[in-house]
Amino acid sequence: MKRIMLVIAYDGTNYCGWQTQKNGIAVEEVINRTLSDLTCEDIKVIGASRTDAGVHAYGNVAVFDTDSRIPGDKFVYALNRFLPDDIVIQESKEVASDFHPRHVNCKKTYEYRILNRRVPLPTKHRYAHFLYYNLDIEKMRDAAKILVGTHDFKSFCSVNTQVKDTVRTIYNIDVIRENEDVVIRVFGNGFLYNMVRIIAGTLISVGTGLTAPEKVKKMLEAKDRQAAGPTAPAKGLTLVKILYEDEDVMKNFKKSVDTAGSV
Amino acid sequence: MKRIMLVIAYDGTNYCGWQTQKNGIAVEEVINRTLSDLTCEDIKVIGASRTDAGVHAYGNVAVFDTDSRIPGDKFVYALNRFLPDDIVIQESKEVASDFHPRHVNCKKTYEYRILNRRVPLPTKHRYAHFLYYNLDIEKMRDAAKILVGTHDFKSFCSVNTQVKDTVRTIYNIDVIRENEDVVIRVFGNGFLYNMVRIIAGTLISVGTGLTAPEKVKKMLEAKDRQAAGPTAPAKGLTLVKILYEDEDVMKNFKKSVDTAGSV
Repeated sequence: MKRIMLVIAYDGTNYCGWQTQKNGIAVEEVINRTLSDLTCEDIKVIGASRTDAGVHAYGNVAVFDTDSRIPGDKFVYALNRFLPDDIVIQESKEVASDFHPRHVNCKKTYEYRILNRRVPLPTKHRYAHFLYYNLDIEKMRDAAKILVGTHDFKSFCSVNTQVKDTVRTIYNIDVIRENEDVVIRVFGNGFLYNMVRIIAGTLISVGTGLTAPEKVKKMLEAKDRQAAGPTAPAKGLTLVKILYEDEDVMKNFKKSVDTAGSV
Repeated sequence: MKRIMLVIAYDGTNYCGWQTQKNGIAVEEVINRTLSDLTCEDIKVIGASRTDAGVHAYGNVAVFDTDSRIPGDKFVYALNRFLPDDIVIQESKEVASDFHPRHVNCKKTYEYRILNRRVPLPTKHRYAHFLYYNLDIEKMRDAAKILVGTHDFKSFCSVNTQVKDTVRTIYNIDVIRENEDVVIRVFGNGFLYNMVRIIAGTLISVGTGLTAPEKVKKMLEAKDRQAAGPTAPAKGLTLVKILYEDEDVMKNFKKSVDTAGSV
């Protein structure tokens, strides 16, 4: 038995999110089915991030256990042969058998993309939130600075959460203009339900002049979802990368396994 | 009666191309239907470029005649309210009543996008041709230089064409690396059927080392479709812009119309 880690990219447009639900097809479900067919085992992956319906990923992470003779780094090719075009494995490797993608320290990067121009662009429709009003990047940056650090982000969390500890750390927020797009890149150690979309909605409200940048401090202090800005639409959000702090440890582990010839 | 010019962007994925056909829904058809509903007239637009199934556009051009009281520059908003998300008017304006988008000198810019990395990316699936083999940009540039100028492009034209004069002018071809994409940007005074896709297929064949750059000269001289490289897939191609040489003339015309208050 070995534990395999997958780095997974997907276009979330046609899915009800990562996690299996009754109201549609989930990304997780498609991967489980493909893996089970491939290995002739009943496989259920454990995902790192339960992204919402319509949210995209370049690098979500999942693990599963298998007795398959397929080497860890070959699952990427084996799976991609059978997965649909909107789910593509980016990388696969063997990890320690007790590695759990949600119980280990990690840092996540999310990107929220806004198409900021006069009229929408069809080729951006699935991957960016269209906004007609010109965004003031400098104001958005000022507001973003207030959110960086360790704070109680209760105001920036959907009320539909069961989480009790709403303290999180944001290491950095970049607000960048890329041609006609405005990209909000958030780097932190874990995120509450809808947190990045509420941050994006709040920064948009600052960028359009509706909210003063300094008001964001009051939003944090309020510890009340009503105080912060709206939840920006899912389609603008992409989970870019999950960085595991002990990735070096995992690599060393894998090397020793390879050397032992047990793969 | 006035003549209106539309600049049209679309995601070609779900269409059988620009031109009305029996085997699917055409972009032109959707615009005709929406315009006819909007004006209560029977409107058939004349398109500048009959893009193929799956090809995208940021700026195709079409004109139509109408007695509608909607001002020329307001059609953009009126139409976008009713068009699907994958067709969006970028601009509308009144032009001279004898302006014909195919009978007037123009310059076109096309972009062919290749995703050049180890595994595909789902969010690029619709808009780029995936290629695993690393492309040698310098060799592609050397080959592209041979194609620039006025040549008989018969080798770079689908055999399914009825056009007799296959001489065209290419002003410029840029081959650019944008992160993991390789973009071939072609600027010319008119293109034969499949010409940009055959140029892209040929440059890809040069970039992977299959074809020597200097062989492109022989391809041109052969005046035979068999001599050139394969036709690259439609989804990588986007019609970026159509530039009408006398656009200033049109602007002046429009101004005089506006001043006369006849709109």
